[in-house]
Amino acid sequence: MNYILSNENAIYYACGYSNDNCIYLSLGSDSFFITDSRYTQDAKESLSSKPTQVIIDADLSYRAAKLINKCKVSRVSYDPKEWDHYTIMRIQSKTKVDWKSKVDFSHKKRMIKSDDEIKILARAAKLGARAFRDFAMMIDVEGIGKDERELNFLASSYMSDFGKLSLSFDPIVAIGANAAKPHALPTDKILKNDDLLLFDAGLKYKRYCSDRTRTVRVKDGFSFNKKQKYKSKKIQRAYDSVLKAHDKAIANAESGMKANKIDAICRDTIEKAGFGKYFIHSTGHGVGLDIHEMPYISTSSRTKIEDNMVYTIEPGIYIPGEFGIRIEDTVVMRDGRVEVL
Amino acid sequence: MNYILSNENAIYYACGYSNDNCIYLSLGSDSFFITDSRYTQDAKESLSSKPTQVIIDADLSYRAAKLINKCKVSRVSYDPKEWDHYTIMRIQSKTKVDWKSKVDFSHKKRMIKSDDEIKILARAAKLGARAFRDFAMMIDVEGIGKDERELNFLASSYMSDFGKLSLSFDPIVAIGANAAKPHALPTDKILKNDDLLLFDAGLKYKRYCSDRTRTVRVKDGFSFNKKQKYKSKKIQRAYDSVLKAHDKAIANAESGMKANKIDAICRDTIEKAGFGKYFIHSTGHGVGLDIHEMPYISTSSRTKIEDNMVYTIEPGIYIPGEFGIRIEDTVVMRDGRVEVL
Repeated sequence: MNYILSNENAIYYACGYSNDNCIYLSLGSDSFFITDSRYTQDAKESLSSKPTQVIIDADLSYRAAKLINKCKVSRVSYDPKEWDHYTIMRIQSKTKVDWKSKVDFSHKKRMIKSDDEIKILARAAKLGARAFRDFAMMIDVEGIGKDERELNFLASSYMSDFGKLSLSFDPIVAIGANAAKPHALPTDKILKNDDLLLFDAGLKYKRYCSDRTRTVRVKDGFSFNKKQKYKSKKIQRAYDSVLKAHDKAIANAESGMKANKIDAICRDTIEKAGFGKYFIHSTGHGVGLDIHEMPYISTSSRTKIEDNMVYTIEPGIYIPGEFGIRIEDTVVMRDGRVEVL
Repeated sequence: MNYILSNENAIYYACGYSNDNCIYLSLGSDSFFITDSRYTQDAKESLSSKPTQVIIDADLSYRAAKLINKCKVSRVSYDPKEWDHYTIMRIQSKTKVDWKSKVDFSHKKRMIKSDDEIKILARAAKLGARAFRDFAMMIDVEGIGKDERELNFLASSYMSDFGKLSLSFDPIVAIGANAAKPHALPTDKILKNDDLLLFDAGLKYKRYCSDRTRTVRVKDGFSFNKKQKYKSKKIQRAYDSVLKAHDKAIANAESGMKANKIDAICRDTIEKAGFGKYFIHSTGHGVGLDIHEMPYISTSSRTKIEDNMVYTIEPGIYIPGEFGIRIEDTVVMRDGRVEVL
């Protein structure tokens, strides 16, 4: 298959290198990495042992079109989701090939991870878990009295191991009612003892992402484990349902199941506890080079879950103005069952 | 003009709020902000005093198409650069209006800044300059012996005022030969006395970006000012040409000039000094809600520079394997001349 890529992670997967301005072409037995002159050194060094030819041009898409015409291929596949409309239309208008739209084709390739990828993802998860532990210890010693913004900054510092690693996404550090926004931005709300604290964060190890969420009651010697006791009965009831949903999905998901079946395991548990309408997002998403990738674990996803797929299980309950709870682990399917990374 | 937006900054400019998953529609006298349920609270709170209606839907583009059909407009404009091919094609296929492609139309609107925007950009620049000063003092006290990764982490910490502000982009902290890559990624190279250090960083204040680069010789009591003395004659000669190009552009750029004329002022100066082939990027770019926006100051840009435009002047010389130099300020056109922010 001849194909063209523009997404940074898709290109990294294809040839082992990418940057923030590149196009990759696989045409017959040739492959080309097109980038601009800021990256000449980087690209040549990184691809020196690879068959991919490095092409430097200020006008990437024009050069891509020229290469396609020169290679005399008849058909080129592309993923319409990874291209901006302007660029792909421009390339298409300058070529005389048959363009084949293949939605998510790079993501589909990447859905089943190799053993090496799983090792990297497991290591990312371990580093993430360690950062959660260290962040909890910091909060325990000196977190009370800091606001969400400061805590968010410290969370980024711990997750990145003070700059050694990149983050999968901006951490979410939300106190009490702020946690009711699944994608809360940090405010000047100050952390007090007995507060509910939701912490969702991930890091990148060798470009692969980790992703984890814990919701805890902050008190002396607390940690980000899953056993939590809240003072409010309603919070406790909600917490217990989320944990039950999370554990049930992990215990019962099997290779061969449709993704929406796993979503249903979580959703049914939370509905039975009476919180159904507060579980406002899907159960999970694939994790790899992208923090959100296939398979999606949602009510509508009919993807068959298979061994070596890596995804999150993250049920939640969000009651506006009151509190939010989410418990998330990244898991891998192995020998037909779920293993938590 | 009826129009549809998907870019976060374009939408913020249009209605004063945006998040990472939204579509904005301006149809006749109505405007709609479509987002998903994770952002219900945020969107409603932020847009409560505005005429824009908040619409919650998991399928944003389907809902956008429905609204367009319901409003019975005949033509809708869009910027093909800000849409992914899949989404805009899907919306277009579900509507029966005349779609008008208008490249960069939001960016063009935003090119001439209001006085309020310039005040915010000036404040961002001041905060950026202060962070540069503090970062220099830190390096002076304890920076020698740290590697680029640690310095990069500390740079992010200082630029964000330890988590209070977002960054315009990941800072570039490059030592010696690493600075020859205009977009260098941090390595484990260790900072020593007398090293050349290139530092390019920006922060966001009220969502508007700052951008600044200095190249210095690290020694006791150094600062990120423009007067620098290097031991190597070649470096000094290159540095002096970059500074001369930078100062000449600032002294001679005028409102009414074409952008490529300003680029030529820098380029000619560096060419005359014999370093022409090492000035491998354009002279500058607009700065606003986006870190790179219009006007572009390049050899090919024929944009007429006008009062209240804000852009960078950042000539550079990059000699692979040896060193890189860049000096960058963000400037505003006022009363026909350049004012450094």
